[in-house]
Amino acid sequence: MNTQYSNHKFPRVVIIGGGFGGIEVAKALKNKEVEVMLLDRNNHHTFQPLLYQVATGTLDAPSIAFPLRKMFRKQENFTFRIADVLGIDATNKTLDTDIGSISYDYLIIATGATTNFFGNQDIAHNAMPMKNVKEAVSIRSFILQNIEDSLLKTDTEERSAYLNFVVVGGGPTGVELSGAIAEIRNHILTKDYPELKKEDMNVYLVEGLPKILANLSPQASEKAELYLKELGVKVLLNVQVTGYDGDIITFADGNRIKTKTVLWSAGVMGQFPSGINPDIVVRGNRIRTDEECRVIGMKDVFAIGDVAAMITDELPRGHPGVAPVAQQQGRFLAKNIIRMLSGQPTEKFNYFDKGSMATIGRNKAVVDIGKIRFQGFFAWWVWMFVHLMSLVGFRNRVVTFINWAINYLTFNAGIRLIIHKYRRPERVREPVNE
Amino acid sequence: MNTQYSNHKFPRVVIIGGGFGGIEVAKALKNKEVEVMLLDRNNHHTFQPLLYQVATGTLDAPSIAFPLRKMFRKQENFTFRIADVLGIDATNKTLDTDIGSISYDYLIIATGATTNFFGNQDIAHNAMPMKNVKEAVSIRSFILQNIEDSLLKTDTEERSAYLNFVVVGGGPTGVELSGAIAEIRNHILTKDYPELKKEDMNVYLVEGLPKILANLSPQASEKAELYLKELGVKVLLNVQVTGYDGDIITFADGNRIKTKTVLWSAGVMGQFPSGINPDIVVRGNRIRTDEECRVIGMKDVFAIGDVAAMITDELPRGHPGVAPVAQQQGRFLAKNIIRMLSGQPTEKFNYFDKGSMATIGRNKAVVDIGKIRFQGFFAWWVWMFVHLMSLVGFRNRVVTFINWAINYLTFNAGIRLIIHKYRRPERVREPVNE
Repeated sequence: MNTQYSNHKFPRVVIIGGGFGGIEVAKALKNKEVEVMLLDRNNHHTFQPLLYQVATGTLDAPSIAFPLRKMFRKQENFTFRIADVLGIDATNKTLDTDIGSISYDYLIIATGATTNFFGNQDIAHNAMPMKNVKEAVSIRSFILQNIEDSLLKTDTEERSAYLNFVVVGGGPTGVELSGAIAEIRNHILTKDYPELKKEDMNVYLVEGLPKILANLSPQASEKAELYLKELGVKVLLNVQVTGYDGDIITFADGNRIKTKTVLWSAGVMGQFPSGINPDIVVRGNRIRTDEECRVIGMKDVFAIGDVAAMITDELPRGHPGVAPVAQQQGRFLAKNIIRMLSGQPTEKFNYFDKGSMATIGRNKAVVDIGKIRFQGFFAWWVWMFVHLMSLVGFRNRVVTFINWAINYLTFNAGIRLIIHKYRRPERVREPVNE
Repeated sequence: MNTQYSNHKFPRVVIIGGGFGGIEVAKALKNKEVEVMLLDRNNHHTFQPLLYQVATGTLDAPSIAFPLRKMFRKQENFTFRIADVLGIDATNKTLDTDIGSISYDYLIIATGATTNFFGNQDIAHNAMPMKNVKEAVSIRSFILQNIEDSLLKTDTEERSAYLNFVVVGGGPTGVELSGAIAEIRNHILTKDYPELKKEDMNVYLVEGLPKILANLSPQASEKAELYLKELGVKVLLNVQVTGYDGDIITFADGNRIKTKTVLWSAGVMGQFPSGINPDIVVRGNRIRTDEECRVIGMKDVFAIGDVAAMITDELPRGHPGVAPVAQQQGRFLAKNIIRMLSGQPTEKFNYFDKGSMATIGRNKAVVDIGKIRFQGFFAWWVWMFVHLMSLVGFRNRVVTFINWAINYLTFNAGIRLIIHKYRRPERVREPVNE
């Protein structure tokens, strides 16, 4: 064991993952009699709900990524390390990581989810996921590269592959991403590329279910589909993707689209280190927990957020994979840990559903808050306000506001930069299971 | 020949490079009876004077990089292509590029300069250059990675290599870069990394000449050195670097410093496609031109900016490699081309020297404007104003202003992100010659 991490006077809470859940645990343990150690592969927290705006050039990456050290610089009981946690040894209460062994008293697995390609290696290799800043920046580069490349093709058929953009998955991410790409087509394409016509570019949104935004209200689904169609997005429902070789995407109904760009937002799956009993890993590669976020069968090990499945009679599939669940579980768990340390009885987690929303293009959104449902321009303002206020850091809120305001007034989001040219990986980028 | 680029009714001016010189030529030819084609490897113009602020996390990359298509979207006679120009065939007036053959009537080589490692392969491989946005972002990542890695080393000697930062080259770039790294040490290090002390980190500026800023006035050199020392930068003068293996930098006087990070701003050299007579390539790999920017011995081929050496009796070494030379030559050349087309006599280039400046840390700068020389706080305001106004794009000026203001008030520049983890290249990144 690495002695550097083992000489502590208070119990050590180790949190794996600086996402929405992990940072809430750490914050809620400020000034408590515990040592908090946060581990993440990256040095920043990512505001995932706005990744699609980085991918489509409205926002710069630093506006939605916040350095974790800066976030916690006033918290004395906090330590941060960039680390990849490889395994959990629950018997010895240690983690095996790429920076050595780390001991814990309480372990919180807040490792979130990664893209789920449902076992299709071709799709995993050729389609582009969007779960972190690097991937979003890659999408921005690749969209621009393909439009540039299209100008070099004189054959119309060949050219179309570069100008067909296919988004797979009709959840909020797919809806927002396809809407934003359609805005590029509608407002930017012919100005930046006078050689091209609007009609040369096509944006598709492909969904396997009979409707998009299936987790929102029927009104939200219907309106979102209408708004997308008004923007010119071709919405394909009840369509199953069977393959994508980098040039042609094929569907179960026999149809196919020539395209260089498939953006994959069709599913996620939990990701976590080894050492978890496979019997408690459920659908979506999530770790089953009890109602106190405790991993079933493990002592002092907890899981929260997208990686966790708190399955009860009322919730046979666990909570939805959204930020508020992770945040509420994080705050809840920190309180329970404090209760445990002071010998008080622990409590059960209770999720408060604040609602769901998605934005479509520059003036429209759909919002469900319990029974209250509204869509359109006012919903779009609500969406903007909620997201702006949720960003971490004063600078990020100001810069994002300016970018949005200039973009709204000029129809001309400015960050169409190719800094790191994107090339398809030579091998599959993430382990593919499920 | 690619027919796509050859069917034109007006003479075609092809510009290689969208730097300070290239964009001025293109702008000045707006609404003239020429076709303008701009070629660049990147899709954006880079404001190189502020690269060091991206490298040190004060500014985000999009603030100093501006998409070339957006810059020229209102110019009808303008075409842009991302292209790597491989060779010039002056006989047939065509360019060989990675996107096919391109014909020209007038060719402007505005390809700028790349880092000069003076033939030292080890340095070229292990030291980090800073001539484009990608390289600046790599430096930002690598500085942060090394500070993170230092926390994992218990051996003081071993740790010091991660916390010694060596900047080679005492020109404006080296001075500004070392000053900004010293500010990280002075104001950020112990807040973000409570495990570290200020004294653990060292910043060196190494210069082969007896003074820094050798091209500025003696007062500027002296004051800049004083300001750097006040910031805690160890300024090493009259020191020649002999090698760097990635762990230890060695000097001609036998001294050596253990360091993982050597930032190389010790020299530049022109870069240009093949097809230029080697007899007219002078010191610094620059192309010799006459006083009208015409490449010696070539017809209708011109060179401007850092890649050009307009050698005259008064200027035996040509103009300095600074943005105003490139900009003035660009505007001058566009006018001369218009004169040629209308049968008027051409003129000779005359450089108007607007002066030089460099900033050191958060409150100090040195400014030389002809005989007027001043240093200190007011100079720093002048420096800021000039650079802010020189940025392209309203958004970029606003965002940069906000970043500077927040940074100034909080001592806490925010963009300390590692998005693309930096790894040393496996081979030398640029051709190394002299």
